Amino acid sequence: MLNQKDVAFIESIFTFWNRLNPLQKSLILGNAMPVNYARGENIHSGENDCIGVLLIKSGELRTYMLSEDGREITLYRLTQGDVCILSASCILKSITFEVLIDASTDSEVLLINSSIFQQICDANIYAENFSYKMAADRFSDVMWAMQQILFMSFDKRLALFLVDELSRNGKDSIALTHEQIAKYVGSAREVVSRMLKYFENEGLVKLSRGAVTVIDKDRLGKLT
Amino acid sequence: MLNQKDVAFIESIFTFWNRLNPLQKSLILGNAMPVNYARGENIHSGENDCIGVLLIKSGELRTYMLSEDGREITLYRLTQGDVCILSASCILKSITFEVLIDASTDSEVLLINSSIFQQICDANIYAENFSYKMAADRFSDVMWAMQQILFMSFDKRLALFLVDELSRNGKDSIALTHEQIAKYVGSAREVVSRMLKYFENEGLVKLSRGAVTVIDKDRLGKLT
Repeated sequence: MLNQKDVAFIESIFTFWNRLNPLQKSLILGNAMPVNYARGENIHSGENDCIGVLLIKSGELRTYMLSEDGREITLYRLTQGDVCILSASCILKSITFEVLIDASTDSEVLLINSSIFQQICDANIYAENFSYKMAADRFSDVMWAMQQILFMSFDKRLALFLVDELSRNGKDSIALTHEQIAKYVGSAREVVSRMLKYFENEGLVKLSRGAVTVIDKDRLGKLT
Repeated sequence: MLNQKDVAFIESIFTFWNRLNPLQKSLILGNAMPVNYARGENIHSGENDCIGVLLIKSGELRTYMLSEDGREITLYRLTQGDVCILSASCILKSITFEVLIDASTDSEVLLINSSIFQQICDANIYAENFSYKMAADRFSDVMWAMQQILFMSFDKRLALFLVDELSRNGKDSIALTHEQIAKYVGSAREVVSRMLKYFENEGLVKLSRGAVTVIDKDRLGKLT
């Protein structure tokens, strides 16, 4: 089911690999499943949903919270080589909250289902410790997001998002609607549109349908 | 330095105790230090501050974030029997953020300094795993706080705080100033005062100097 590259990928990501016995290794390899997600697809939707650990081969997963009135707050994003552990939060007894996870681009992952991974973690302290370390990494991400959301004025937040996007995609423009940007920065579409219009009037960006082109990256960067 | 009760306390809190060798046990016991903090005292103030692991014998510690303009956001509180691990965050490589920790009441703790605890964690995977589990517990606390802050309207948040305080202290009133309540709920004093005045007009609470007396707990509870 897995090719040689997948096996090498798992061995490189799971830093506890050498601590597993042969049976545990073959249990993981025999149960790791390549899965593709389409852009926008929901992977994990909170309560009672515990599909397993995801090793990201390509693409990007976005983890977020959803309010009662449907507002989304992006907590962090995972990309190639990252491990998504909160999609297996039922394994970690100390994790008592629920988040949502979507594929934000077409993504290829290896999925190791929760009951198999639980079995490994119960039997092998190094595997369990790896999982809790991954959770602590995400804790750090969430604290960063929280500081952005709580303490930064919105112009800074939006400018930071745009600058981050450019450095990620290596282009001059960002192919996202205001609605999508609002989801990423945890705000409302109206607020994003207003601020982008302000940025345009300031000569920082140029707006077009479904895209924001940055025309003065230096000045935008100074806002952040 | 430690009395028998302190030793038993450590053994009951550190669930990895039986996984330690005699040398590691005596290293912890020989370096655990009883410390008293006065109400309001700062215990940990972020960067470069890594005093060690705190085992709380009595009292309450409050962990919070501070914005550039001095606003405080309470993340969680720890009480008797809890372990404060973020005061030793330098030990956990996955924890890359900084928080502040104050004693919110007079508190007695046992302090195990960071370098000793680091030595134990480096040598003993069960101790390290315990620390990361504690961090994951706090992750869950922070996610809860974040949901409160981001998604609840302020009347709900304040009502929830008051109801929680009553169930904690077993009384009818809360001996805190509006300023202190504002710190706990992550808001401004003016906002708290205005909402409390509104609650008073609604016949839910009675305000007096330095205290809030709840006179209709049922209706207040319905707000939450």
